[in-house]
Amino acid sequence: MRQNIYDDPTFFEYYKELRSSGITFNDFVEQPALKALLPDLQGLQVLDMGCGFGKLALAMVEQGADHVTGADISSKMLSIAPKIPQITYIHAPMEELEFEAESFDLIVSSLAFHYVADYDRLMAQIAKWLRPGGTLVFSTEHPITTAKLDMDGWIEDEQGNKLHYAIDNYGEEGQRSTHWVVDNVIKYHRKVSTLVNGMIAHGLMIQQITEPESTPEGLEKMPKLEQERRKPSFILFKAVKL
Amino acid sequence: MRQNIYDDPTFFEYYKELRSSGITFNDFVEQPALKALLPDLQGLQVLDMGCGFGKLALAMVEQGADHVTGADISSKMLSIAPKIPQITYIHAPMEELEFEAESFDLIVSSLAFHYVADYDRLMAQIAKWLRPGGTLVFSTEHPITTAKLDMDGWIEDEQGNKLHYAIDNYGEEGQRSTHWVVDNVIKYHRKVSTLVNGMIAHGLMIQQITEPESTPEGLEKMPKLEQERRKPSFILFKAVKL
Repeated sequence: MRQNIYDDPTFFEYYKELRSSGITFNDFVEQPALKALLPDLQGLQVLDMGCGFGKLALAMVEQGADHVTGADISSKMLSIAPKIPQITYIHAPMEELEFEAESFDLIVSSLAFHYVADYDRLMAQIAKWLRPGGTLVFSTEHPITTAKLDMDGWIEDEQGNKLHYAIDNYGEEGQRSTHWVVDNVIKYHRKVSTLVNGMIAHGLMIQQITEPESTPEGLEKMPKLEQERRKPSFILFKAVKL
Repeated sequence: MRQNIYDDPTFFEYYKELRSSGITFNDFVEQPALKALLPDLQGLQVLDMGCGFGKLALAMVEQGADHVTGADISSKMLSIAPKIPQITYIHAPMEELEFEAESFDLIVSSLAFHYVADYDRLMAQIAKWLRPGGTLVFSTEHPITTAKLDMDGWIEDEQGNKLHYAIDNYGEEGQRSTHWVVDNVIKYHRKVSTLVNGMIAHGLMIQQITEPESTPEGLEKMPKLEQERRKPSFILFKAVKL
């Protein structure tokens, strides 16, 4: 059974409220960086892996995508995602998705791949599902953030001021367990080199890497996002199938 | 005037003895990783940027390179580098090198690019000097290591045990000043994304990234190299000119 924290009632209620607030790391750091990496969407067949509430899928349709297939493990999230003809939802864990070869012009994924244990298989499948010249754009937690076994990185003084971020265990790839609203959220730490080499091994040519900071609006509305300049939470990749 | 710590008498004597000991981070971490990234050297015209004592240049000739041009800022280091017909030495800072377009099949650099202020210009020149299909292989200090402004990363307890490595200022690229045998050694911190995107911008396609750990021999002879698994000191890139 794949982990599905997003259908945990406690987590789901917290997460739904958080995301609908519009004041999150996603809104001001990750999503602006992800959208900046997207190609011209006009007429594209898109796969969104871990589409959640379908907000990005909808935005891509509004920007001209011909059709978006949104896949997510959480039935609760899909139940409130926008139902329009240009979006098809699939309720399944990413590891169980199957498509014909060369089905998509663009595959996107927002902060979902760090939940997947077998990254090499994931990249092999994406490379298969993309048409030649097709694009992969994804965000994932930065290896600097996932390295330490307890993922408890910020070291603070007695007044709660952040002194620095603690790195350890960088070379020990694999499972990390952390507390995020609920206990025992499982993520997978991978080195930057592993993330990059895994794409290249399957014929995905790196076009751009982004280690984003907050937008100016984010710094105003969420001052703690200044910390993104001290230690990045996310890393994003754009690659093209040769 | 470019910084030239390697001709500082104190630094030079220390460094010459260190490197001739054969018991260094270079011997067990960086050089094995660099050599593993080199292409078949048979018949190649090679440029070694920051060749130092010429040890790598000599090894490349022994492995079949047709000719190696070794460039270094340090006259003291070049003065004891091996003088053989297949190696030409140039005494100049990297920033002042000039070659005809498409002069080399391979450009290598070992732990020198973190001394260069203008990375984009460096990549533009390398892309110009390489023949189409030619290869760039270089190592540099890992951004995790150069991020914190004082580059003083390992946090220890009172007994001197390493607790974790401190990251900070990751997004603040630019100059770092550190003490390494002598005061005020100037290096430049760049994000992983900047290192990668700078190559791509000039038509250098990423083929592989390495974040090396110690060889088994290194762990025996220099037990502290276990720390490379906790926090990488180096990152290496292999790219091909399209």
